[in-house]
Amino acid sequence: MEYQSLFSEKMKGVKASAIREIFKVANVPGMISFAGGMPAPESFAPAEIAEICADVLANNPVAALQYSVSEGYPALREAIRARIKEKFDIGTERDELIVVSGSQQGMDLTAKAVLNEGDGVACEEPSFIGSLNTFRTYNAKLYGVPMEEDGMDLVKLEETLKAHKNIKLIYTIPTFQNPSGITMSLEKRKKLLEIAARYNVLILEDNPYGELRFAGEDLPNLKALDTEGVVVYVGSFSKIFSPGLRLAYMVFDRGLMEKIVVGKQATDVHTNIFAQIILAEFLKKYDIDANIQKARALYKHRCQYMLDCMDACFPEGVSYTRPDGGLFIWVTLPEGMDSSALMLEATERHVAFVPGNAFMTDVDTPTNTLRLNYSTMPDDKIKEGIEILGNLLTEKRNG
Amino acid sequence: MEYQSLFSEKMKGVKASAIREIFKVANVPGMISFAGGMPAPESFAPAEIAEICADVLANNPVAALQYSVSEGYPALREAIRARIKEKFDIGTERDELIVVSGSQQGMDLTAKAVLNEGDGVACEEPSFIGSLNTFRTYNAKLYGVPMEEDGMDLVKLEETLKAHKNIKLIYTIPTFQNPSGITMSLEKRKKLLEIAARYNVLILEDNPYGELRFAGEDLPNLKALDTEGVVVYVGSFSKIFSPGLRLAYMVFDRGLMEKIVVGKQATDVHTNIFAQIILAEFLKKYDIDANIQKARALYKHRCQYMLDCMDACFPEGVSYTRPDGGLFIWVTLPEGMDSSALMLEATERHVAFVPGNAFMTDVDTPTNTLRLNYSTMPDDKIKEGIEILGNLLTEKRNG
Repeated sequence: MEYQSLFSEKMKGVKASAIREIFKVANVPGMISFAGGMPAPESFAPAEIAEICADVLANNPVAALQYSVSEGYPALREAIRARIKEKFDIGTERDELIVVSGSQQGMDLTAKAVLNEGDGVACEEPSFIGSLNTFRTYNAKLYGVPMEEDGMDLVKLEETLKAHKNIKLIYTIPTFQNPSGITMSLEKRKKLLEIAARYNVLILEDNPYGELRFAGEDLPNLKALDTEGVVVYVGSFSKIFSPGLRLAYMVFDRGLMEKIVVGKQATDVHTNIFAQIILAEFLKKYDIDANIQKARALYKHRCQYMLDCMDACFPEGVSYTRPDGGLFIWVTLPEGMDSSALMLEATERHVAFVPGNAFMTDVDTPTNTLRLNYSTMPDDKIKEGIEILGNLLTEKRNG
Repeated sequence: MEYQSLFSEKMKGVKASAIREIFKVANVPGMISFAGGMPAPESFAPAEIAEICADVLANNPVAALQYSVSEGYPALREAIRARIKEKFDIGTERDELIVVSGSQQGMDLTAKAVLNEGDGVACEEPSFIGSLNTFRTYNAKLYGVPMEEDGMDLVKLEETLKAHKNIKLIYTIPTFQNPSGITMSLEKRKKLLEIAARYNVLILEDNPYGELRFAGEDLPNLKALDTEGVVVYVGSFSKIFSPGLRLAYMVFDRGLMEKIVVGKQATDVHTNIFAQIILAEFLKKYDIDANIQKARALYKHRCQYMLDCMDACFPEGVSYTRPDGGLFIWVTLPEGMDSSALMLEATERHVAFVPGNAFMTDVDTPTNTLRLNYSTMPDDKIKEGIEILGNLLTEKRNG
């Protein structure tokens, strides 16, 4: 059988090998990995989940194991609706909320609903590689918009929208952006909504880290400011409950409901209903905010500790962000230094990170940036890993 | 915001409302529903699953709640590989096996890997509406091939392949086909493989019901006869373990691996890992075949009981299949009778079924066929519902 001629054009264009190779290296035993984006296992609640499982399987087993509806478990949808209304003022009378199998599915279903091959997606540059790859599987054209300290450069965004009428979607992670850690200012949030409405382009707001703030003041989400129905909001329980259970949700205007739900049906019928019930029960019986508070304290400590180590042993000429939340520090190396090449040397010394080019619309052009994750490593490993990186960078600088 | 101009061409063409409306009606309290396709809850194993949950969450919680790999939980992949090798002789040295979030995702990932918009899928007519809708979300052209008593009409299939060079995929449910209940003969299985290889077209073998045989002799799956790597096989645990946990698997030649796994990553990253571990532990510690045996006995009884009731009260001129397994009886009404119109009258009398046109490539043309499901209703409800249908049909015949 000859497969090459069978592959779809959209999948021919998708390269996943580079970052996959990095993660393979990062998972080698003995590696100090700052490459991941996983929440700290200390923030999981296995004892509470075990109690819920026992209860549900004893008293409501058929609901937990039988087929369910594509839109999601009604009690979970209701619980999330109430929670995000109270905490973020998200959810108007026109808004629908559905449960999806992780945030990535939110990106996939939005892309499916609106993107023809060759349609454009404006995205922050750098941005989350997973979402960019989802858009690539629709053969979308990605238009990178540079990041400023207060978020996407909106002058450049508008130039991009003017120049490329094929753009249907603006993809943004406005709060603790992955990988840069940048949070979009309130002024830019308002301006972005105005631009999107004017060009009749949807905003896809990806907010996995919004509740992981450990310094500074909360800003309203784009969806909370959205009066025109331009925002498709994707919220996730991966970083505040469990990523392995694949539980996220989408909020969008009811005009989008039919296409997104039909897409969901055609993709995986419905999200694992046992997991949905577990989360619904958890939200009812336990205090998820107390859990989140614990995670925040842990990330605050690990972030500060990693920054302290970097301050102590990174050479001059290397700069980095000082995040108020989220999971990542974004590092800029001296001009001309290639972080992919550096990564190979670092992994030989048993330290892994993700080079910046992995997050670019053009992954093949070398960059002098890299992403460090601080959420999962204990202090001693953070210290050891950062010292190794610091030594390597000092050698580079002196050599 | 104006959404119509934003929707993708592929999603504009997808109609899901008809069947969704049926299911809404079918779920009204008091309805005797023969419309579903759900396994009997009596076949679930909640007590065993509860034991496993307690054990896993006590002893291995991080693995169950943290991110995992796209290809699936290694121990589960290994357990399924061993099971299907032993039971069905599926799995050559060139074959890969991955875990997916229900069979539907197997259809979606195969479609994503090979279908450009306008590419063709040859499918049995009638066929499973869920899969047809998945192909429709890729803007695929569906070419229906009529069914004979021993499976797809292969002369017509070859004519179709000759006439339409855009066909990349042959979609088939060879065993206890949904909705017709037909099982493809061994001779046709061999011939189909030969045809697919000759035309360099993939066969997508969907086998959710293969283990639910309660009469007759097992036939080898297409994948077990596949020496050329033309078959993408999708097996499911929905009908033999739990549909709510969304656990299925795909087996295919390694030449397809990269594109399918990249598609999986871009769609939902990985399948719920807690559910994967539950199934892996269940396969290790319990006897799934004993469970399947119980389900088979129940379906054998319910199928026979429904047929007995139909024999007793359906009028002359109505014919139906006598299945050896699976979940469905396929009914052919007298020529010219419209089963969609009949369905509306039946639901007024609190009985629901799915009219045949829902399973056709052209859902808008009326048919004189309908599908009855016997797996979930107790005997008294089967009797009551079939009597109501019988009376309605007799009135139609006499009026």
